[in-house]
Amino acid sequence: MRIGVLGTGMVGRAIGSKLVELGHEVRMGSRNADNEDAVAWAQAAGDSASAGQFAAAAGFGEAVFNCTAGMHSVEAVDAAGSANLDGKVLIDVANSLDFSKGRPPTLGIVNTESLGERIQAAHPEARVVKALNTVNCEVMVDPAIVPGDHVVFVCGNDDAAKAEATRLLGEFGWPEERIVDLGDISQARGPEMYLPLWLRLMGPLDTIRFNIALHKAPPG
Amino acid sequence: MRIGVLGTGMVGRAIGSKLVELGHEVRMGSRNADNEDAVAWAQAAGDSASAGQFAAAAGFGEAVFNCTAGMHSVEAVDAAGSANLDGKVLIDVANSLDFSKGRPPTLGIVNTESLGERIQAAHPEARVVKALNTVNCEVMVDPAIVPGDHVVFVCGNDDAAKAEATRLLGEFGWPEERIVDLGDISQARGPEMYLPLWLRLMGPLDTIRFNIALHKAPPG
Repeated sequence: MRIGVLGTGMVGRAIGSKLVELGHEVRMGSRNADNEDAVAWAQAAGDSASAGQFAAAAGFGEAVFNCTAGMHSVEAVDAAGSANLDGKVLIDVANSLDFSKGRPPTLGIVNTESLGERIQAAHPEARVVKALNTVNCEVMVDPAIVPGDHVVFVCGNDDAAKAEATRLLGEFGWPEERIVDLGDISQARGPEMYLPLWLRLMGPLDTIRFNIALHKAPPG
Repeated sequence: MRIGVLGTGMVGRAIGSKLVELGHEVRMGSRNADNEDAVAWAQAAGDSASAGQFAAAAGFGEAVFNCTAGMHSVEAVDAAGSANLDGKVLIDVANSLDFSKGRPPTLGIVNTESLGERIQAAHPEARVVKALNTVNCEVMVDPAIVPGDHVVFVCGNDDAAKAEATRLLGEFGWPEERIVDLGDISQARGPEMYLPLWLRLMGPLDTIRFNIALHKAPPG
């Protein structure tokens, strides 16, 4: 299918490349059409890859990934434009990491709101699904690099959109039973607020290629 | 050893009972010396169990657990009294869950601060260790009810205090390799901000007796 990827950073490039590898046509969007990272990525990624402004990427895609830095995501999605997002699945993988107070970063949107909710509220015409924000981009697109039955989360207001996101995650390598549906988009507060723990686990685990698995007691 | 437990709710009673079962002497503390839950607990728990005000429990203990509701924990630790906490390990298992805005609760202390930090800042004479706040109290005191290599976290400014907390967690059944040291007390923001995800996992998992395991990619 045709997919727009908003964002030219590590996450956007990882997801864009994986989608091309899977046989999709991908347009990477950025603020400026001549963004060097996006142009270089498109050249390297081959004939199915192209680059353009946010609006061009969103308009091109039948589905859209938001891979922009979370503190600028609403602005980027605004630039993508409501007409270009109308009725489309918008998979939001971003985190509102705020480095202005030092490291580790705090969250710019937190506790009584989430980035996923803010994007959905600003763009009711889009069908926002929060997903994949709890793992590094290498794990996002190749979960098998981490052993075991580790999980990711989806949430959103539109069940068909979540099913479509789940299908795309399946192409990345996430088995359906390891994709946990948390409910509507307000549930994005959960996986987004997990980030501060994720950031603090990198040290003890000595890698960014990790994830969590869920274990529960047997019933009774 | 002699241990003070601040708080008479499910968490305080679970930890108090486990400590008695392990052979410790436990005094449960509450605002009022005649707190019905605390008195009933002490009567049921046997000769090694007693109840009193926060100050009496803290003064009795060689180590102290904070099991009060997080929104009232600073007040409870204040009532316990600096002289009664001086030099002691204070294991803070609480979460600042704020139900005033409905369910699921938000966090009353979040993002740029944590409850663990706030308690440590208010009581520099105590050696605060944040621990166990990421699991239900049944799992806290009996981790074997959940299968697999699931983990808990400790953090605090005093290494010897963390070692003492780790030893007590070991008595509860947590093997040392499943107790992840995140660093100083400011790292409490990580496990505290995990709570919103924890709250949202109860539904999909259909139990509160669950926990997370960490999986990582092999080096290279």
